[in-house]
Amino acid sequence: MRVAVIGASGYTGLELLRVLVGHPEVELSVLTSERFAGQSIDTFFPSLRGFVNLQLSELSIPTVAREADFVFTALPHGTAMGVVEELIQRGKRVIDLSADFRLKDGDVYKRWYGQHACPSLLQEAVYGLPECYREEIRDARLVANPGCYPTGAILALLPLMESGDLSVTSVVIDAKSGVSGAGRNPSLTTLFCEVSEGFRAYSVAKHRHTPEIEQELSFRAGRSVHVLFVPHLVPMNRGILSTVYVAGPADLSTEQAHAMFQRRYQNDPFVRLCSPGVFPTTQQVRGSNYCDVGVMVTEPTNYIIVISAIDNLVKGASGQAIQNMNVMCGFPETMGLEHVPLAP
Amino acid sequence: MRVAVIGASGYTGLELLRVLVGHPEVELSVLTSERFAGQSIDTFFPSLRGFVNLQLSELSIPTVAREADFVFTALPHGTAMGVVEELIQRGKRVIDLSADFRLKDGDVYKRWYGQHACPSLLQEAVYGLPECYREEIRDARLVANPGCYPTGAILALLPLMESGDLSVTSVVIDAKSGVSGAGRNPSLTTLFCEVSEGFRAYSVAKHRHTPEIEQELSFRAGRSVHVLFVPHLVPMNRGILSTVYVAGPADLSTEQAHAMFQRRYQNDPFVRLCSPGVFPTTQQVRGSNYCDVGVMVTEPTNYIIVISAIDNLVKGASGQAIQNMNVMCGFPETMGLEHVPLAP
Amino acid sequence: MRVAVIGASGYTGLELLRVLVGHPEVELSVLTSERFAGQSIDTFFPSLRGFVNLQLSELSIPTVAREADFVFTALPHGTAMGVVEELIQRGKRVIDLSADFRLKDGDVYKRWYGQHACPSLLQEAVYGLPECYREEIRDARLVANPGCYPTGAILALLPLMESGDLSVTSVVIDAKSGVSGAGRNPSLTTLFCEVSEGFRAYSVAKHRHTPEIEQELSFRAGRSVHVLFVPHLVPMNRGILSTVYVAGPADLSTEQAHAMFQRRYQNDPFVRLCSPGVFPTTQQVRGSNYCDVGVMVTEPTNYIIVISAIDNLVKGASGQAIQNMNVMCGFPETMGLEHVPLAP
Amino acid sequence: MRVAVIGASGYTGLELLRVLVGHPEVELSVLTSERFAGQSIDTFFPSLRGFVNLQLSELSIPTVAREADFVFTALPHGTAMGVVEELIQRGKRVIDLSADFRLKDGDVYKRWYGQHACPSLLQEAVYGLPECYREEIRDARLVANPGCYPTGAILALLPLMESGDLSVTSVVIDAKSGVSGAGRNPSLTTLFCEVSEGFRAYSVAKHRHTPEIEQELSFRAGRSVHVLFVPHLVPMNRGILSTVYVAGPADLSTEQAHAMFQRRYQNDPFVRLCSPGVFPTTQQVRGSNYCDVGVMVTEPTNYIIVISAIDNLVKGASGQAIQNMNVMCGFPETMGLEHVPLAP
Repeated sequence: MRVAVIGASGYTGLELLRVLVGHPEVELSVLTSERFAGQSIDTFFPSLRGFVNLQLSELSIPTVAREADFVFTALPHGTAMGVVEELIQRGKRVIDLSADFRLKDGDVYKRWYGQHACPSLLQEAVYGLPECYREEIRDARLVANPGCYPTGAILALLPLMESGDLSVTSVVIDAKSGVSGAGRNPSLTTLFCEVSEGFRAYSVAKHRHTPEIEQELSFRAGRSVHVLFVPHLVPMNRGILSTVYVAGPADLSTEQAHAMFQRRYQNDPFVRLCSPGVFPTTQQVRGSNYCDVGVMVTEPTNYIIVISAIDNLVKGASGQAIQNMNVMCGFPETMGLEHVPLAP
Repeated sequence: MRVAVIGASGYTGLELLRVLVGHPEVELSVLTSERFAGQSIDTFFPSLRGFVNLQLSELSIPTVAREADFVFTALPHGTAMGVVEELIQRGKRVIDLSADFRLKDGDVYKRWYGQHACPSLLQEAVYGLPECYREEIRDARLVANPGCYPTGAILALLPLMESGDLSVTSVVIDAKSGVSGAGRNPSLTTLFCEVSEGFRAYSVAKHRHTPEIEQELSFRAGRSVHVLFVPHLVPMNRGILSTVYVAGPADLSTEQAHAMFQRRYQNDPFVRLCSPGVFPTTQQVRGSNYCDVGVMVTEPTNYIIVISAIDNLVKGASGQAIQNMNVMCGFPETMGLEHVPLAP
Repeated sequence: MRVAVIGASGYTGLELLRVLVGHPEVELSVLTSERFAGQSIDTFFPSLRGFVNLQLSELSIPTVAREADFVFTALPHGTAMGVVEELIQRGKRVIDLSADFRLKDGDVYKRWYGQHACPSLLQEAVYGLPECYREEIRDARLVANPGCYPTGAILALLPLMESGDLSVTSVVIDAKSGVSGAGRNPSLTTLFCEVSEGFRAYSVAKHRHTPEIEQELSFRAGRSVHVLFVPHLVPMNRGILSTVYVAGPADLSTEQAHAMFQRRYQNDPFVRLCSPGVFPTTQQVRGSNYCDVGVMVTEPTNYIIVISAIDNLVKGASGQAIQNMNVMCGFPETMGLEHVPLAP
Repeated sequence: MRVAVIGASGYTGLELLRVLVGHPEVELSVLTSERFAGQSIDTFFPSLRGFVNLQLSELSIPTVAREADFVFTALPHGTAMGVVEELIQRGKRVIDLSADFRLKDGDVYKRWYGQHACPSLLQEAVYGLPECYREEIRDARLVANPGCYPTGAILALLPLMESGDLSVTSVVIDAKSGVSGAGRNPSLTTLFCEVSEGFRAYSVAKHRHTPEIEQELSFRAGRSVHVLFVPHLVPMNRGILSTVYVAGPADLSTEQAHAMFQRRYQNDPFVRLCSPGVFPTTQQVRGSNYCDVGVMVTEPTNYIIVISAIDNLVKGASGQAIQNMNVMCGFPETMGLEHVPLAP
């Protein structure tokens, strides 16, 4: 299968390439970048030397349509939507890694991102979290790949939200991300010296991933769910640790909560559950598509604490996109994604 | 004033020395270390070369009593209490940086740390948070210097707890610390490779600083306060960022909350308040005795979010100890502590 | 093929497991650790969950001999030699990752490491650098896997040393290593806070890898070669960058030097050459078995500068060991080692 | 004394402010920044809150001339020269932290930086290394503050270069710098994710600090000296470690070399010499104006190895500038610069 990556010069693009070059069913055919067109990809990303030697080219939809069977778009939000629409119109199946098709409600999109140019596709797009929408993804033309924070937060909360018995009244998500989540464009706030020894919160209670998290949790809970979401920036390259606090019912034990998670994820190959009361670190999932989850119920404060760890570039972006591709194309879901995490 | 530092070979000891060598009223006279006795302190800590050239010696209480007017004990909990008792009996004024005299209730101490050897001193010891106990510290023989996490957490919560109007029902403290808080003893969990790219929570809802936080918040609130306290380890040397979530009343604005903090801390030289809705980073207090605090009230979730940043080795340990010494000795409270934070 | 890893609880052991679980011809059968015997390997190293669920056991040579066809020993030097000898006597083929069989001269071993217990094996052991000894490795019973620094340094110097024309008079190797090279045993010097923001040289002109480098360069040059070797510790987990300075002849151009390297390594799948005048970073080889090499000749100072980058745990240790296993067992040399480097 | 900082929004500017706010003879009067004019400096750099509350303003030479007695220019090279010339013409004494007045030879400047606009000042400007030019600095109108790399390299080499007996034939400077040396402008190469786990060399044998080093060493040696200078980027905020290799004479011992350094620097308050054979780390000078130096002579390779450690923002830039100001103004040389290094 010939695959195109539109917007290949960012960290998400690089990570797509890292995984795709090892995928047995994939042949990379087109890589685009407006800014770096003309450069050889293995000069641009020397880690790829020997694996792929295509040139970055400017985006031409007809070329992509002709030379690729399947397309990943890794463009900024706002830019992605038009490209995706054209590709869909030309009959391509697309996985979009931007935020453009994640929100179902055009008004919500407008409030957080601005006017949407092709709202008709919002309903058709399938939210690409296989742990929730595996069946819908199978036949989708357009999959909206989830955000990195939402992936970690939703997987930490799904079993609790889907349980009709559990009346959850308050959800706090204190998330901590490595710096690659901010992308590869030069900016003051992601300079080494601003981040190192400078741990901080940002976009406190205002981050654009909030409506995405609330949308999906509300769908699963069958009622409107609000969350308090506070992201922090960690001086490391990869990884998101989401510490989730749920004010729980008085009578749940850690073991019962753990069993809920175990049942929920028994058929999901990329969710690994820690033993009851044990929590994951970002190092144990680095470079892999796993989401590791730990759960505990506290006394006497009666909170359910769930901590999930993902690699923001893999399960939080490119790995999940390829997991979606596998589902869409009928390949085994784990194909090309069997990386053992790289620790230390 | 001749000053002794008992237990000078750890990070807390080093930081005491860093500040004390610049203090105009202090002359260092005795430095002890059981393991490294005989070594010259400026060989042991080459950063101190040219500032102090004492030798580390084994602890001899009579020598300390004879050669020092004022004593800092920076020993492990359990070890500190006996040394402190003897020094007090010999008429020395002592600031203890261990956990041994922070908890007022011997039973609580026993549950979290083990049997206490001199419980009679627990009541006399003054909890060394000048923002709360300035008057009591002035005349104290024994000051129990607060833990690093409690300092950050309590300063983030004081104005809310002391307000009779505010009925706070739920407090979550999600704290993130640099690695120096774990001390200088070799251990697997603080090796570079275990920490770097390996963000994690630890002692989830079980950390020994929990009862210390609850004790002080309960004192200030005038009722029993429980908190959920979850610490995390950040790949950086210094700094604690405490993100505090308080389920607040419906009718408080960010500006009103900010004004509460402003009033509460107007006479505290080491608490710096950020503008309403702005939050601090650990970098902006590094190497200094400041606690920077930001506050915001969220809608529609109605949380009061407070974030405090301290340098765990300064305001979280040695700087605060010297602030206490200043208060005890009638020196200006900021003497020797005017370091401008070191950023980046 | 059933494979045993003796000494599986260090970083080298973990990295062997990471690669071996993905190797199509290998089944892990025995993992030993004296200190952590009884623990499940996937609890001990949670990154491995789902890939291998053996228990760590105490070392029993008869058990290893019975249950494994091929053995990796990842024990400290001094401890390894006895174990290796017994395994060889029982007919096993062994790759030893310690320093015990790298030096051919028992007197040199004694001077740097202490008395050798089985000097007779020193001559038989093959130095496991496939780029030099591929043929000898094929039939070896015992392969001495090279040190991390020697791998980077020797690969940077081979083409120059093997060239009869080039009269090299002075070799300076300024090497910089990530912290994982120091192993997983708790020690003061590898604590996070000692390393971070604390770049330093160590074992200046005294490091034990010096005689290993000199031995191999002398073999290749056909004359006695001395080098000045100065290692440094970099605040990062993985990677060695070796900056090598060779006082060169007056008439060599960068292009000519580059061509020498290209010829030398044209059949070595894990050496990747940068374009003339371009140099590698450690990030572009991380997690992979590649050694990336850049070369330049300077004017007017007439130095040949060669910089090589490896991942010290892969090409510098466990990956190279598995490359050697592939050669010894007749598998394709790159089998199981096709990891695309993980950047960023 | 009223002091202006022209170009206060970079790391060098921030560091000037950090030190100047604590200087007993200085009152900050004007801070300029073209890009951030109008912002309050303590909002822009929150670490400075409570120490200085001036506004950043656009540069107006007349205003600076009227409101300041002494001026630091921290502008990019090329931009600085015109501003400096005007300020000198208006009778101000200036310390310029750019490269514009460091090179004595306008042709050399042109080759490395471009055409110089006021070459007449090149001869008048004094190279601001007090360890070499203390007397000249005292009466200078214009001091060219040295580059960060040259400061570390020259201080490591001075005693050897000034010794007439020692015939040095080959000098290699392998330097490693923290990221703050690259400044605060957003750029791809200094993003956190490009630097972390990505140690690398850059500008190999082509860095602009090379002619500056050669100029000063040649002056001190009384003959033309060429060096091979290779800088590397270390994943840390502050610090330069320069490892210097000098092919030495056969008959020098480590102790003799050490004695040469001791004699040379006995009257220089900011050079601290390590014991013979001991080398410094960057951590032991962080946040201070010290240059710590270690020296060793190797056998049998007969190299003199010198390693110097500085904080690139202090002794490598702003601290040295203030040391120069002290000398120019007749203040004690160490005034305001007595910071104890911040470790860890």
